[in-house]
Amino acid sequence: MARLPTLAVVGATGAVGTVMCELLTGRRNVWGEIRLLASERSAGRRVRCRGEELTVQVLTEETLDGVDVAMFDVPDEIAAHWAPIAVDRGAVVVDNSGAFRMDPDVPLVVPEINPEQLRNRPRGIVSNANCTTLAMIVAVAPLHREYGLRELVLASYQAVSGAGQAGAEALHDQLAKVAGDRLLGSRTGDVRQAVGDELGPFPAPLALNVVPWAGSLADGGWSSEEMKLRNESRKILGLRDLKVSATCVRVPVVTGHSVAVHAVFATEIDAEGARNVLRNAPGVIVVDDPAAGEFPMPIDAVGTDPSWVGRIRRAVDDPRALDFFVTGDNLRKGAALNTAQIAELLAKDLTHP
Amino acid sequence: MARLPTLAVVGATGAVGTVMCELLTGRRNVWGEIRLLASERSAGRRVRCRGEELTVQVLTEETLDGVDVAMFDVPDEIAAHWAPIAVDRGAVVVDNSGAFRMDPDVPLVVPEINPEQLRNRPRGIVSNANCTTLAMIVAVAPLHREYGLRELVLASYQAVSGAGQAGAEALHDQLAKVAGDRLLGSRTGDVRQAVGDELGPFPAPLALNVVPWAGSLADGGWSSEEMKLRNESRKILGLRDLKVSATCVRVPVVTGHSVAVHAVFATEIDAEGARNVLRNAPGVIVVDDPAAGEFPMPIDAVGTDPSWVGRIRRAVDDPRALDFFVTGDNLRKGAALNTAQIAELLAKDLTHP
Repeated sequence: MARLPTLAVVGATGAVGTVMCELLTGRRNVWGEIRLLASERSAGRRVRCRGEELTVQVLTEETLDGVDVAMFDVPDEIAAHWAPIAVDRGAVVVDNSGAFRMDPDVPLVVPEINPEQLRNRPRGIVSNANCTTLAMIVAVAPLHREYGLRELVLASYQAVSGAGQAGAEALHDQLAKVAGDRLLGSRTGDVRQAVGDELGPFPAPLALNVVPWAGSLADGGWSSEEMKLRNESRKILGLRDLKVSATCVRVPVVTGHSVAVHAVFATEIDAEGARNVLRNAPGVIVVDDPAAGEFPMPIDAVGTDPSWVGRIRRAVDDPRALDFFVTGDNLRKGAALNTAQIAELLAKDLTHP
Repeated sequence: MARLPTLAVVGATGAVGTVMCELLTGRRNVWGEIRLLASERSAGRRVRCRGEELTVQVLTEETLDGVDVAMFDVPDEIAAHWAPIAVDRGAVVVDNSGAFRMDPDVPLVVPEINPEQLRNRPRGIVSNANCTTLAMIVAVAPLHREYGLRELVLASYQAVSGAGQAGAEALHDQLAKVAGDRLLGSRTGDVRQAVGDELGPFPAPLALNVVPWAGSLADGGWSSEEMKLRNESRKILGLRDLKVSATCVRVPVVTGHSVAVHAVFATEIDAEGARNVLRNAPGVIVVDDPAAGEFPMPIDAVGTDPSWVGRIRRAVDDPRALDFFVTGDNLRKGAALNTAQIAELLAKDLTHP
């Protein structure tokens, strides 16, 4: 291919799409034409991307013609319908929805962990992992390579923008309503009353609250988000028998997913050894000095690329277990950045096959 | 004792003391005189308690004279100094600080779990558990009796009022500053800038953030709060070898501590059996219908007595493990209520020995 490949961003006006346009601006000489596609509702909007003003076009079979790589960030059912159409039209699809992640013919790729799986894509589709999985797995994978992972017990602290722009809007609306009332949150029912029915995409108010639910109801009382953490971790690490228990909780944070990780390994582990493994791991930054107030937090990790890892300590009662806390920007590494990294590896393949 | 016993509330003007005065109002015919004691700073303040206006007195040896039961809610070092003085003056002390909890001569009592230990108090002091331990242990204990507990992996979502009135004030101040700016929390560093140095008792901003730290630095990178969860669980349940790993995280919630619990038992467990055990457990309310939006949350649990338990499900990969989520009012069962319950058992003993 003499020309630079053509990229389509499908779902360009959502929360992830917006961050994608920012990321593309900092990554020149990778793509030739960039085409922004979305639903009819957003068509015609002008969006700045890579220094150009681009007009958002409607996603159709025709607007997919001539696209080499299509990055999809749209709901599962839209991706399920349109990704195969994009493939038929000649594109390789990098999909950020849950539609194809567990398909054995679709690789689930994190470039720092399993880039080699990118070439084995019989359906022409590559999947991007769930945002919570991504923040955590970037730190877990290098520890697995060193110590042999056996089990994960996870509890998440997920930001509202994980539910898209509507999630962020809902939290801001709710905070505007509760701010200033110093009694709110100290008596039963008062936050529900103050927030009213402006719940946005959530089942309960997020202001001054935590909501132990994300996704839809799966078997046995598990949420779909919790099952994604289990199933995607197993697939990315290639560990079919990995034991995973996750509790997914939404918290009143705009952007930045955090996970409290309890990881059990095949061999004994010491905290300083683990810290060194993580210091040398790609996509990870170690922030671990509690005495100095340094631990991973959403307000620091937002807008940055790596997973921030800290509170690294060996379990007091189990020499094979490590506890740590990880925070990542759910719109960047959790979505747009990982998608862009996969797409760039594909672009390199297309340009120098 | 013909008369009703005299009660002293030491630390009457703090966050917990204020709730204590509310609770005492609903519990008549238990106490004769109620004496409110505090530091010189708060002395002279008038506080409504049990329908009377009481004047807060300075804590001295003299104001402790004639007290039968003294409930302490003051910092560790104040409790360490004054509790033995109160005992010398003839009182039984119920202490809510961490000063005596791990003393083998001081029972650590949760009335629903180990009330029998109340009578064995060689130092004349009974300890109240940490607020995070209390929310969780009320649900864990009945499951332990049924299935035999072996291990706990915990992640907390702790409210700011756990750090006292100053914690609640700090969050309200910070929320007033960030409310209305819809970009806050979506870019690096902006929340820190907006909040400035008004951190209150916390090492970082709580507004639009989660802070994976509570307490002081213990050995091996653990926080004192995390070690309390481990050591107090072992002592209350009488399980010297219980494996416990906890991660304690502060969240932007005013009142209501939550804990994601992964509990491993000696025998296989099924979710419906566990749900039945919890439905019949004292101090527990089961709220567990995710499809209907019912799960335990701080905005619902605040101002109520029980621990709210939900998201009850058996681990997908371990038939002996149960995952659930629990929320309790950290100022009530987590502090004032449990203290009042202990004190009332003592009052009954004093009145009908």
